[in-house]
Amino acid sequence: MGMNANVPTDVMFSFAGLATRADEHKDGFGIAFFEGKGLRLFVDPASARHSVLAEAIQRYPIHSEVVIAHIRKATQGRVALENTHPFQRELWGRYWVAAHNGNLVDFNPRLHAAFRPVGDTDSERAFCWLMQELAKAHCQVPSVAELTLTLRELLPFIHRHGTFNLLLSNGEALFAHASTHLHLLQRAHPFKPAQLLDADLRVDFAQHTSPTDRVALVATQPLTLNEPWQALPPGELAVLQGGVRIA
Amino acid sequence: MGMNANVPTDVMFSFAGLATRADEHKDGFGIAFFEGKGLRLFVDPASARHSVLAEAIQRYPIHSEVVIAHIRKATQGRVALENTHPFQRELWGRYWVAAHNGNLVDFNPRLHAAFRPVGDTDSERAFCWLMQELAKAHCQVPSVAELTLTLRELLPFIHRHGTFNLLLSNGEALFAHASTHLHLLQRAHPFKPAQLLDADLRVDFAQHTSPTDRVALVATQPLTLNEPWQALPPGELAVLQGGVRIA
Repeated sequence: MGMNANVPTDVMFSFAGLATRADEHKDGFGIAFFEGKGLRLFVDPASARHSVLAEAIQRYPIHSEVVIAHIRKATQGRVALENTHPFQRELWGRYWVAAHNGNLVDFNPRLHAAFRPVGDTDSERAFCWLMQELAKAHCQVPSVAELTLTLRELLPFIHRHGTFNLLLSNGEALFAHASTHLHLLQRAHPFKPAQLLDADLRVDFAQHTSPTDRVALVATQPLTLNEPWQALPPGELAVLQGGVRIA
Repeated sequence: MGMNANVPTDVMFSFAGLATRADEHKDGFGIAFFEGKGLRLFVDPASARHSVLAEAIQRYPIHSEVVIAHIRKATQGRVALENTHPFQRELWGRYWVAAHNGNLVDFNPRLHAAFRPVGDTDSERAFCWLMQELAKAHCQVPSVAELTLTLRELLPFIHRHGTFNLLLSNGEALFAHASTHLHLLQRAHPFKPAQLLDADLRVDFAQHTSPTDRVALVATQPLTLNEPWQALPPGELAVLQGGVRIA
């Protein structure tokens, strides 16, 4: 699940919805919060449903412009802290974070530069390769538009190896690549109440927002019942900035 | 403060002692826990004394072989998440973490490789330079003995620029470089009760340990009253592995 907003926003309502799906995706969870260039990344190899850390995070709402959260169903790589998404690297003096839903078969690219996996998942391997190729394509942080062009070139090389729903961010924009399942929702004025699909939890966003707020959410499956989630077609890259989809 | 142990150990007693010193060092805190190759890093630009996150961490004892904790008194760089220690990077497929106590004057090394600061502290600059030079000196994770030799060559280049008490780890060993104030304590069987210097808190380690446990602690100032903390002389590099000082 990813969130991008034009004002620091808390995602605890959506994270609560995601956590209810952790019975199937029980092999760890993680959540990354960008606050400007700064980053907080929480990872735990326990299920989000039972993790003491998940519970602590939900009691402590962090306001952030970009959030990437993940619940893991292990395909490649054992259940371990180093295999828990999201993964974090630094490039050009910015932190980069990625989380992957899916499974990549025979994806063993040559990693000959400054990014190596710590764990043994296909996902971290793909992230390291992406970072390596981005580092070759630009000499400093590119504009979001330039970065989008480079990612559109690179992502198909990974996608051809299997299911590759990906969330990636450097804190400036949130990049969401759809493979099998990825849904997008944009919230804006007039805000309305929303009801979680998987839990008896309801929030009236009109009471927690101001008219200029913009929030965009992506998730493999819609998190709420009564909002216009839009399925992204396979191979599509959605770019979210300032709380809206820009590309 | 740093901890290295031969069995996963919780540092909540020591962290409680450190947190009481956060009135002067109030500009953020952070704590990094290695669990094998995996890493959990918590950072908060709030004081450890008032941070909701610090409180949550203390309720949730994490057992780890290597811990680096830091309370910040800002000298260079504003109070911000990206300027909060410890800092994290990846090299050779291992995470590296560093925290610095001190102040470096006119330390502006050429950073021409894969490690760039995200924030604007002297400390992160020094860490990035160290990572850059380590990456040049070895082509893969060196042994702790080899790494010690390289660090003994590199650290004086930073130290000549000012106060440079440093804790560094890749999860295998804890490197502690003394500049002005750094104290070392080694705990082993027979374990005894210890009393915090700054708080009315006492633990009888005999009740929480087994006879083969070994724990080494470093801190700028001794954390406990009744234990044989040893001051490290300026320029000394202590290497802790398996809960004991090996060099």
